[in-house]
Amino acid sequence: MAKSADLYYKVHPWKVTEEGFNKDYALVSESVFSLGNEYMGTRGSFEEGYSGSSLMGNYFNGIYERTQLEKSSYKGIVDETEFIVNSADWLYTRVEADGELLDLNTVQFKDFYRELDLKSGILTRSYLWILKSGKEIKLEFIRFLSMKEAESAAQKIIITPLNFSGEITLHSGIDFTGIHQMTGRNMWNVVSKSADENTISMLGTTIGTDQSLLVSCKFHCDYAKREDEQEEKRYIRKFTLSLEEGKESEFTKIIRNISRKGRTESDKKAFKKECEENAAVLHALTYRKLKEDTLAWWEEAWQESDIEIKGDKLNQQGIRYCIFQLHQTYHGADQGTIIGAKGLTGEAYSGNTFWDTEAYCLPFYIFNNPEAAKHLLEFRYLTLSEAMDRAKALDCEGAFYPIATITGRECCSLWQHASLQLQASTAVAYGYWHYENITGDSGFIFEKGLPILIEVSRMLASRGDWSGDGTSFGFYGVMGPDEFQMMVNNNCYTNYMGKKTLEYTLDVLKRCSQTAPDIYGTVTRDRDLTVKEIENFRKIAENMYIPYEEETGIFEQHEGYFNLPQIDVDKIPMEEFPLYHHWTYDRIYRNNMLKQPDVLMMMLLYNKDFTREQLENNYNYYEPRCIHESSLSPSVHSILASQLKKEEEAYKFFGFATRMDLDNYNRNTGEGLHITSIAAAWMNIVYGFGGMRSDGKELTFAPSLPKQWEGYSFRVHLKGDILFIAIDKDHMRVSSKKASGIKILIYEKEYTIGQEEVVVPIIR
Amino acid sequence: MAKSADLYYKVHPWKVTEEGFNKDYALVSESVFSLGNEYMGTRGSFEEGYSGSSLMGNYFNGIYERTQLEKSSYKGIVDETEFIVNSADWLYTRVEADGELLDLNTVQFKDFYRELDLKSGILTRSYLWILKSGKEIKLEFIRFLSMKEAESAAQKIIITPLNFSGEITLHSGIDFTGIHQMTGRNMWNVVSKSADENTISMLGTTIGTDQSLLVSCKFHCDYAKREDEQEEKRYIRKFTLSLEEGKESEFTKIIRNISRKGRTESDKKAFKKECEENAAVLHALTYRKLKEDTLAWWEEAWQESDIEIKGDKLNQQGIRYCIFQLHQTYHGADQGTIIGAKGLTGEAYSGNTFWDTEAYCLPFYIFNNPEAAKHLLEFRYLTLSEAMDRAKALDCEGAFYPIATITGRECCSLWQHASLQLQASTAVAYGYWHYENITGDSGFIFEKGLPILIEVSRMLASRGDWSGDGTSFGFYGVMGPDEFQMMVNNNCYTNYMGKKTLEYTLDVLKRCSQTAPDIYGTVTRDRDLTVKEIENFRKIAENMYIPYEEETGIFEQHEGYFNLPQIDVDKIPMEEFPLYHHWTYDRIYRNNMLKQPDVLMMMLLYNKDFTREQLENNYNYYEPRCIHESSLSPSVHSILASQLKKEEEAYKFFGFATRMDLDNYNRNTGEGLHITSIAAAWMNIVYGFGGMRSDGKELTFAPSLPKQWEGYSFRVHLKGDILFIAIDKDHMRVSSKKASGIKILIYEKEYTIGQEEVVVPIIR
Repeated sequence: MAKSADLYYKVHPWKVTEEGFNKDYALVSESVFSLGNEYMGTRGSFEEGYSGSSLMGNYFNGIYERTQLEKSSYKGIVDETEFIVNSADWLYTRVEADGELLDLNTVQFKDFYRELDLKSGILTRSYLWILKSGKEIKLEFIRFLSMKEAESAAQKIIITPLNFSGEITLHSGIDFTGIHQMTGRNMWNVVSKSADENTISMLGTTIGTDQSLLVSCKFHCDYAKREDEQEEKRYIRKFTLSLEEGKESEFTKIIRNISRKGRTESDKKAFKKECEENAAVLHALTYRKLKEDTLAWWEEAWQESDIEIKGDKLNQQGIRYCIFQLHQTYHGADQGTIIGAKGLTGEAYSGNTFWDTEAYCLPFYIFNNPEAAKHLLEFRYLTLSEAMDRAKALDCEGAFYPIATITGRECCSLWQHASLQLQASTAVAYGYWHYENITGDSGFIFEKGLPILIEVSRMLASRGDWSGDGTSFGFYGVMGPDEFQMMVNNNCYTNYMGKKTLEYTLDVLKRCSQTAPDIYGTVTRDRDLTVKEIENFRKIAENMYIPYEEETGIFEQHEGYFNLPQIDVDKIPMEEFPLYHHWTYDRIYRNNMLKQPDVLMMMLLYNKDFTREQLENNYNYYEPRCIHESSLSPSVHSILASQLKKEEEAYKFFGFATRMDLDNYNRNTGEGLHITSIAAAWMNIVYGFGGMRSDGKELTFAPSLPKQWEGYSFRVHLKGDILFIAIDKDHMRVSSKKASGIKILIYEKEYTIGQEEVVVPIIR
Repeated sequence: MAKSADLYYKVHPWKVTEEGFNKDYALVSESVFSLGNEYMGTRGSFEEGYSGSSLMGNYFNGIYERTQLEKSSYKGIVDETEFIVNSADWLYTRVEADGELLDLNTVQFKDFYRELDLKSGILTRSYLWILKSGKEIKLEFIRFLSMKEAESAAQKIIITPLNFSGEITLHSGIDFTGIHQMTGRNMWNVVSKSADENTISMLGTTIGTDQSLLVSCKFHCDYAKREDEQEEKRYIRKFTLSLEEGKESEFTKIIRNISRKGRTESDKKAFKKECEENAAVLHALTYRKLKEDTLAWWEEAWQESDIEIKGDKLNQQGIRYCIFQLHQTYHGADQGTIIGAKGLTGEAYSGNTFWDTEAYCLPFYIFNNPEAAKHLLEFRYLTLSEAMDRAKALDCEGAFYPIATITGRECCSLWQHASLQLQASTAVAYGYWHYENITGDSGFIFEKGLPILIEVSRMLASRGDWSGDGTSFGFYGVMGPDEFQMMVNNNCYTNYMGKKTLEYTLDVLKRCSQTAPDIYGTVTRDRDLTVKEIENFRKIAENMYIPYEEETGIFEQHEGYFNLPQIDVDKIPMEEFPLYHHWTYDRIYRNNMLKQPDVLMMMLLYNKDFTREQLENNYNYYEPRCIHESSLSPSVHSILASQLKKEEEAYKFFGFATRMDLDNYNRNTGEGLHITSIAAAWMNIVYGFGGMRSDGKELTFAPSLPKQWEGYSFRVHLKGDILFIAIDKDHMRVSSKKASGIKILIYEKEYTIGQEEVVVPIIR
């Protein structure tokens, strides 16, 4: 748990800024200054090229490639994985002056300044380039992605010669030569290139997966000379600019990227049409309009989802950075897009999405952008058939959702996880349930949730089994969320989530049959669901074994856990972390140490199912055994510690939640941002200090104020309204945008949020 | 368990013969007609070449190569494996006549006959080749390996033109171009070739491991013309023979193969010297002398280890074939040689040795060739340092013996087995204990056993752990012999074997300190063994947890086993076997089905520790849950069924023990012989029907006669004497070679075997 903060960037409530360039921090900064708009993402690399450490990355949500793995001689083990590809560099720029090539790794420069404005999503960077001749040129680079027209982005370069007049050469264009660093391979065939007076464009196709990307850009600048340079996978326009001493010259590039993910004829036809229309669309785009629209988008986003923290500048900056990156990663523009573990900010985790989506990310969207939450869930509906294929591959019925995926297919090649962890499937069910519980959108559940629920329930019924004496049902040979217990029987979390999934399935079936008999008929007919099978679901749910010790009130993480050898996790030397790198693989599985919450995760997700005493017993038992090797672990503990009034512990675990990446706590931010941890940071404030609970019939709050803070506020979308919630030392204040009379519980008492602000004293 | 016999070879008490050549059986016959002499082995391939299915293989014990595997990101997982290489074909022959090349896959032939004479180890083969011209040539091929001069072998070809006189061309030489079929690669560099009037020789070196092999041969024949043909890795002498109608022409080739396994300067020096002296040694060898010596060797071997079965021709042939192959595979000529799972008869299992050596093979040697048993154990002494390296790689102290190895290094790349199965280490301790218990050779144990025992005990103490409540010791995260329970806690077999290992270590320490204080001092000093550590061993042994249910008298295979989901193994459809190929990998681990005996294995190895009632309870409980997917499983069950007087069951499980390969029961004999199952077949008769037990202070017998037999006899080496034991319907008769007055127990009563034959009535 001992981690240290770098505090490299300047602290500011709305900005992340870097003053002076630290090469050792180049990779981290590339990640931190990443821009994204769900559709595409680009790391904060230097567009003018940089020969030092760099992971130049441009990613498109859903554009991926495949790797064949060695075929296992055992059945059900993944032998092909899919990963996000590094796409075209559409910001490609090179600058030459006096025969010198601008490269901050080699040239002389000063006054380096970089700024990410969280309010506008605009990234700017400037410095003064000192040529060998003594000439000085000021350069300013501005870029942003449109949050309205997801395919569009803009780049501006402002060049000012400070002590001379003369020529400078600017190469700008499109570069498809980038490599996927993990495999060391370029993944693109360039199909065509074209250009006219103001624009160039290139059409690329992924080598193995036959997806397409049309990159086009439009230039605005005064130039003295112009020349095109073409290579197989690169199209560059070389501009010679005549600069006047002390005068700014502007170079503007408007970019439009259209991707084709699908491979059907109609996908190709639609894409062809888009390509044909692209010139006209690109022509109509202006830098000003793109910027205005993006500013407006962000303004609304902040109005609806800002968190303000008074008296804590670090966390203020931190949580806004988190919210900013969550919006950048996903805001529900498209049903088929996903939230990769690193968002669109790096290759790590292959751009795959995990159960984190439903367990950690979904709450942010449910309470900030319910439409996006729905679209996020729809990905699982769209990939139900892949999950059914996977179930078959695992000798199960129904649907087995993948541990890691881009397209719905299982990409985790470690069978220990891919075959033994059922939590992706139960998290999908949980996600649909959570969404319905808050939004009341039963129509969506009946139509798109029910098929999933039926198939996941089938999987559970076939994957689990009756105990030797036939008295209880459970899951054998599983790994729960705590990945330090590899292959156990009756993992409490897995059994409990299985039970809840089956119960929710039965509940939805019942309600659907009553209120939407047509849908019920269609779905159950399509899925061949029989009364007998429903009865089996009920029997299993009723007899699900939940390991629990009455005397102590502690849930046993799995059968036999209580009698495992004890490890005092505080005595493990610091240098042995992370354990995966320092302990023999099997050694981590031979004791009662936890990697991350398991029983406690269950108690967070279905919080109201448990008494405060039970929570306390289990927290006190499991927390000291947990080493928090997952970056998601501390926030869960912080939330529960808040609930248990363990204020210091709650704040300790919150310690680096909002600033995990800004301060590079895990020393691997260079690979990409910890997007799902960022989502947990939001939960940490709203569920933790705000004490919000969303698993009951009404939304409830039991707020507290960390003693380090003067106050904080957050927003919660609910039933078409937005609640504005502010907490200070003495009071919680709740008002709402529409004063629509929403009812909530605060400290177990019901309040209606109407015209008048509700003010409730803080209970300590 | 449903297997079917091919009964392809002719039944004969001392021979395996094939009349007529069946191409579909070519691979199986190659295995069945394998010759070996511990030092080297050659499959029964056609030396004249064969373009049909063939796994041409020549192997040398201890000559191996390496493969690099993908490095795991986890610690302690094997990333380099070692495998036996296919070496030079020293029988290489090609025959040409009238421009036709002899190849039984393409030419016309009749009267094919092949015979392996178990009494002499001589393999002969003959047939009549019918040329396109109508000419008929009779060919007879004879080969054998010397059992006295392990480097030597002989080949004779007798050629008789039946209906013409004329020329024939015979190519004979040495071929280093053979490939290792699994990798498809040739593993040899040829360093030098030489030849003189009568001999040729080639020196090859393995590509990656720098081991050497000098192959030399001497020709005897009358030829009209002679010509040498050289390629990079092949040296062939082409003889033109003038044949006379109806007259036999003999071609003889004496072969001498010298291998260098070690890589030290002194190894190389010694090898160089051997090579220099080779010409003279080869010159002195004669076919007649080699044959005489080999016949004499086999005569003695059969006198000392034959098993006779009256009234069952199939098993008579089968058991003699087993004994023959056991002697061929290993007879203790060298301390560094091993018994690979397939002996020297194929590439399968990479020529690696397993715990089968100590658990299944060692008893045969202890009771047929105690000196060989000692040498077999010495391999573990020689590789103690590799086992200590492996322990370190697994974060353990002491020595962790490999699951699969050639040189002592772990070659099993499946961490599930290599890291979780402790039975190789405890089997080594068991082997030393078993050897001492029968031979009383404590000097050997003190000198070479004690260091191993100390280091294995250290490993056990560090690999195991105290239970959560601190009251008992056990092994967590292990796989027992039953490989269908992957990662369990307190596997009964593992815990029990651990306890016995520690107890034996303590016992040897005590006896050594009393009777050989010098050795005790040296060993304990060299190994830094402290009194505190010895006390820890004692404490662990005393507190070892042995899962046992008092009410039922059943040992629980591992903690939680009793409550696993039940599978009725008889209801698994035949076509789903072998399960590894038809069930998802994780599925086989989720129920109470056994692959092979686990608790029952423990009850066989330490038989006297358990009451008959306990044995019966456990047999009745576990046998119906076992699918016998290991070829070693039926014999263990047969032995215990005999003990329990379940005669029909005992005979059923014995069903294919002796003829597993002769009848190709497992459909994979083509890959090589099941050498360790062959050893179990010997145990099945001696321990099973003979009722011998060797884990008590005295050797005991409780014989029975299968009702299908008229009688049987076997031999047992004991304390320098040899017991001759014959059982018929009514009596057991015991005499001995030296009448040295050995005491044994028969049906729990003591008898002294002196001049007079002891006759004891059979108890039914």
